[in-house]
Amino acid sequence: MDEKLPLRSENFSEWYNQLILRAEMADYAPVRGCMVVRPYGWALWENIQKALDARFKATGHENAAFPLFIPMSFLEKEKEHVEGFSPELAVVTIGGGEKLEEPLVVRPTSETIIGHMYSKWIKSYRDLPILINQWGNVVRWEMRTRLFLRTLEFYWQEGHTAHATEKEAIEETRRMLDVYTDFAVNEAAIPVIPGRKSESEKFAGAAESYTIEAMMGDTRALQSGTSHSLGQNFARAFNIQYLDESNNMQFCWTTSWGLSTRFVGAIIMAHGDDQGLILPPRLAPIQVVIVPIFKNEDERALVSPVVEKVQAELAGLRVKVDERTEVTPGFKFNDWELRGVPIRIEIGPKDVEKGSVALARRDMPGREGKSFIPQTGLKAEVDKTLLAIHTAMYEKALAFRDAHIFDPADYEEFKQVVQNGWAFSYWCGKGECEGQIKEDTKATTRCMPLDQKPGEGKCIHCGDLAHQKVYFARAY
Amino acid sequence: MDEKLPLRSENFSEWYNQLILRAEMADYAPVRGCMVVRPYGWALWENIQKALDARFKATGHENAAFPLFIPMSFLEKEKEHVEGFSPELAVVTIGGGEKLEEPLVVRPTSETIIGHMYSKWIKSYRDLPILINQWGNVVRWEMRTRLFLRTLEFYWQEGHTAHATEKEAIEETRRMLDVYTDFAVNEAAIPVIPGRKSESEKFAGAAESYTIEAMMGDTRALQSGTSHSLGQNFARAFNIQYLDESNNMQFCWTTSWGLSTRFVGAIIMAHGDDQGLILPPRLAPIQVVIVPIFKNEDERALVSPVVEKVQAELAGLRVKVDERTEVTPGFKFNDWELRGVPIRIEIGPKDVEKGSVALARRDMPGREGKSFIPQTGLKAEVDKTLLAIHTAMYEKALAFRDAHIFDPADYEEFKQVVQNGWAFSYWCGKGECEGQIKEDTKATTRCMPLDQKPGEGKCIHCGDLAHQKVYFARAY
Repeated sequence: MDEKLPLRSENFSEWYNQLILRAEMADYAPVRGCMVVRPYGWALWENIQKALDARFKATGHENAAFPLFIPMSFLEKEKEHVEGFSPELAVVTIGGGEKLEEPLVVRPTSETIIGHMYSKWIKSYRDLPILINQWGNVVRWEMRTRLFLRTLEFYWQEGHTAHATEKEAIEETRRMLDVYTDFAVNEAAIPVIPGRKSESEKFAGAAESYTIEAMMGDTRALQSGTSHSLGQNFARAFNIQYLDESNNMQFCWTTSWGLSTRFVGAIIMAHGDDQGLILPPRLAPIQVVIVPIFKNEDERALVSPVVEKVQAELAGLRVKVDERTEVTPGFKFNDWELRGVPIRIEIGPKDVEKGSVALARRDMPGREGKSFIPQTGLKAEVDKTLLAIHTAMYEKALAFRDAHIFDPADYEEFKQVVQNGWAFSYWCGKGECEGQIKEDTKATTRCMPLDQKPGEGKCIHCGDLAHQKVYFARAY
Repeated sequence: MDEKLPLRSENFSEWYNQLILRAEMADYAPVRGCMVVRPYGWALWENIQKALDARFKATGHENAAFPLFIPMSFLEKEKEHVEGFSPELAVVTIGGGEKLEEPLVVRPTSETIIGHMYSKWIKSYRDLPILINQWGNVVRWEMRTRLFLRTLEFYWQEGHTAHATEKEAIEETRRMLDVYTDFAVNEAAIPVIPGRKSESEKFAGAAESYTIEAMMGDTRALQSGTSHSLGQNFARAFNIQYLDESNNMQFCWTTSWGLSTRFVGAIIMAHGDDQGLILPPRLAPIQVVIVPIFKNEDERALVSPVVEKVQAELAGLRVKVDERTEVTPGFKFNDWELRGVPIRIEIGPKDVEKGSVALARRDMPGREGKSFIPQTGLKAEVDKTLLAIHTAMYEKALAFRDAHIFDPADYEEFKQVVQNGWAFSYWCGKGECEGQIKEDTKATTRCMPLDQKPGEGKCIHCGDLAHQKVYFARAY
């Protein structure tokens, strides 16, 4: 690397941008606001996909693929939906050299076209529930973009389900929120707060929106996955009906839920340090990098067989041997630190002699993260260390978050704390208070947590009686 | 099913369309020429993806993601490329409510935008080769569309590689053609002929195009995967250069190769029969369906524990138990035959008594495909049968193909045979002969096979001396 990364404490935003480019996670595309996800970034996304997809299938969902193009008239069928999305649309007006009679929207999300298909497929209660997920790309014409966090085109999964009853639809919405929480905690080592969105923050067309909110390394919040109970809004707009057991026509209750490549941004910002990425072991494209250390051909001849043996022993893990000869071991250490590989194993002539290897933990860059491990039984030790790294990363992120969540006594203190943290405060529920707070502080309501105990207090803004607390934070 | 499928012999085309709809592989989308791939069809595509992706990774490739939108000016940089694709483009002219300064093309293929990125990423010979694949969707504005075979939007993988030398690029092109051949034969049980495309049939912008060609059940040919050696055409158009070991700037040599959801159509048409799909065991979404047979609750209580035991024994295979109670076993048999599940296992009270199960092979619908297998050791027997089905499907398709490839003595006979088969004939290589043959017979050159022995003969059309034989066929 030519020069050091910017420090997180000095310029978090530049640290983020430069880290992504230098670690070769992504690059800017020649179209404004679009990104190229490079192999290292895409491998991380593929691991996210695998972890989620297994959970979706375990909860009874199947994958399918719906068209990229949606007739403009479809979006107009659900009033709130079109109001929410119409400023952000990319529109195809020419196909095969001819002007189209009806313009086609490049999907910003697929409730409408999937709703249309469900209305064709669903006839009776026996066809329900329909539990379908789609992995794909969507386009939202954003004005201010950031790699992974907000790009014109992004990659995601969108689940769309239809149910016979409201109760089942709400259960599904909450079940998938639980799936996202479980994924964030147990795969990405990111503590998240699952909760309900306020009226102004919910999805365009939803009855209720749920979210998992995570704190980034600069204390800002990132909405990391959402699950929506759509009521009968889309069922009525698209005529998704079924014949119930008593032979009466009923409208379905639908849900949708999504998690996107934005989550890659969450991983970068929740865990990274001034040296670069720190990737959670279960998702890291490379879990262990082996750096052979030798000064000459004799030493190389000594070291190489041990490197091969260790690599074979670690089969089943995602292991890379860095065999580059044009750079020094020191360069390699920095390079893999930048790229956030959880474990580095160094093998030099002395290690060969002692029958051990040097193991360095990415999450503990100092001396305390380094140990010498016997080659015998190495796999068990590496497995144990990967688990320890996952746990330590989670706990560090949790401690950081908890240290930056405040319960301000009044609005003056509130305005202070949300400059460098979150406020967990009573809110009367009025949009005017929410709006004024946003104007005063840039902090928005993030969510009303699900595990909230009953209670009452005074709205942090207007002082009126309030029955719920809500997290306020500046957010990405 | 309300009524029978059309017979393949009477209306192959309608058989194909109706089979896809009835087996719930895909459906027509509300946008002309687009399809919805339903869960059963998508599960087949996911298995195709897994089989190919493992092969790509084993040959050193990584996945990445490049943007959906390409500036119109990029396409214009390679003359043949823009001529080939410009009639088929979908164009975004409006974004975020504003008319765009430069229209954006929805990618029909990604040579141009990937070429642009490679020119940024490649500096020296040390950066080569770059071996990247992308799984995604592309759009080509086709006028006559067919589910899976030709749709406006389709799903595929496109590999794009850059090399220091022509030799390496040609090796890569051929290596990936071999990968496709291996996949077709060993996963899909489809015999294919790998070969080179004629000048008029090659990819717009390629130096050489290679293809795998398969014969469908109506004897028509389907181009099932292609691999292109792009020479330095795109490297020059996009300035993809590297500094060689002697410090001279050189243009790269690039390749691209792709296989799409069209291959799902190949599987349907190469193997299906009048009862429906016959899916190759290694790709089938469901490999074994278990149908419990009982007339009353007593019998059900007898049968259910054995069904569970058998299901547990077959763990590791893709197994479905058909527990529907609203339809008869006979309905279920027809239903799973329609959907092409390789093995059906029936378990009734008599089977419980005898400690056996009834096993039916989808590829042998008659009595000879049915056997009674002891429950003990069932897994080994099922594994063996799946292998036997794969082999039998391959051999049947191969025998059918070989029986429909002809070596006509003259052009009159040629015109006859290509009405119901392929001709393998000498061709002088002139575009005029190729064009006249197409006009006379609708047969096009499919490929010049790679394993062709040196020889010479007379062009089947003009009688001039010819040094190569080529497959002619009507094609999808």
